[in-house]
Amino acid sequence: METDTMTIVPAMKTLEDPLSHLPCSTILGFRKKQVIFAQGQPSTSIYLVISGKVKVCRVNERLSEALLDIYQADEFFGESALIGEPHAETAVALEDTQVMSWTTAELERIAGERPKLAIALMQLVVQRSAEFGNRIESFATDSIQRRLSRALIRFSERFGHRTGDGAVQMMPLTHELLSMYLGTSREIATHFLNQFRRDGYVRYSRREMVVYVDALKEWLKQETGKKAISGAPLAQKYIDAAAA
Amino acid sequence: METDTMTIVPAMKTLEDPLSHLPCSTILGFRKKQVIFAQGQPSTSIYLVISGKVKVCRVNERLSEALLDIYQADEFFGESALIGEPHAETAVALEDTQVMSWTTAELERIAGERPKLAIALMQLVVQRSAEFGNRIESFATDSIQRRLSRALIRFSERFGHRTGDGAVQMMPLTHELLSMYLGTSREIATHFLNQFRRDGYVRYSRREMVVYVDALKEWLKQETGKKAISGAPLAQKYIDAAAA
Repeated sequence: METDTMTIVPAMKTLEDPLSHLPCSTILGFRKKQVIFAQGQPSTSIYLVISGKVKVCRVNERLSEALLDIYQADEFFGESALIGEPHAETAVALEDTQVMSWTTAELERIAGERPKLAIALMQLVVQRSAEFGNRIESFATDSIQRRLSRALIRFSERFGHRTGDGAVQMMPLTHELLSMYLGTSREIATHFLNQFRRDGYVRYSRREMVVYVDALKEWLKQETGKKAISGAPLAQKYIDAAAA
Repeated sequence: METDTMTIVPAMKTLEDPLSHLPCSTILGFRKKQVIFAQGQPSTSIYLVISGKVKVCRVNERLSEALLDIYQADEFFGESALIGEPHAETAVALEDTQVMSWTTAELERIAGERPKLAIALMQLVVQRSAEFGNRIESFATDSIQRRLSRALIRFSERFGHRTGDGAVQMMPLTHELLSMYLGTSREIATHFLNQFRRDGYVRYSRREMVVYVDALKEWLKQETGKKAISGAPLAQKYIDAAAA
């Protein structure tokens, strides 16, 4: 889903699918902007998106908000229930959304009978943790503009569909939402989005966003090249050291 | 381990300990600075630190390095083996270190017989993912100085021991290592460290680092208060919305 160093090479082993081990549960509906859970509340269940989209964010004591991620159909959220800690995150329906949920007690009972469910959930959380690792790497080493390019690539690959002309069409992401993902102000997010729009990497309206994802990946590569030590492959210093 | 909004309230449920479900394995020794695995290499095993310390980092194509975390005795690393993807991280011994490792095949065989091992590993990864969430929140919403204060509090609570005078004594962290954790240059890390040293929040030498952790937590709180909307409790807007 990511580009250059953050490429996750396709998994070499087949991952377990938690859904194939879980019984159906009651479906709950949330309207757009409705809160599914808020940080600090007791966390007893893990949730699965059936339809719609859910933003998971953290709000700090200064009411400044960080967007952790957006989840869509067939994706889980609220996994902190698995360690019995209160929610560290807030989950809000980004559009009209349906979810299913299972309590930790139910999950552990089922996992006791079907060890593959526990392995499936474990793999799911490892993947999530690896994606968070990508984010930390990007925060620590990328400019805001590069972070924005990665965000557009990632969201369009997750939520969009390819159209004829090498572009990906997806739902519009507000500049505010993007700024919370990038960790910058709305104004700065808008500035760099406008720049990508002027340069033809992205088009957006109230109804949709179109990302020219191949061109954007190429931009990221070129932009990397400018500053990279010529010909130095990824982490060669460590790979050399490991081989020694 | 974290402060204010990032406080993880003590777990309400008893977590499973993976170690109580794992047989002993061969102990491998690594000298200081030796690479345990490098990113891009096939990832087949999960590792446990027996003694010493291991830094887990990511190096991007411009050889700029992000420190994900430092692991110590009884902590696991290399969990991407659980999804069969090549290492996205590089692990290096920070001092002379001993580790044990188990292959994914072994783990899955044991987990099939002892479902609690899978649950234990799952909880461990959920906790790690929650800590990464703390980092993302801090990157997205904190100044570098606040990120540094959180890093000093977290590392001293993880690696140090309390001395008589409300201080925590721990191994010295180089300014370079801290800068890779904060996502800034070595110079800027040094600048803010010096500031904390002048103000009496930290003392360091080549041999040790002393963090006045209670005072530093108080600083973080005061510094938060300055910018906080008076009396606005954490995420009240979402909690109100959830109650509505």
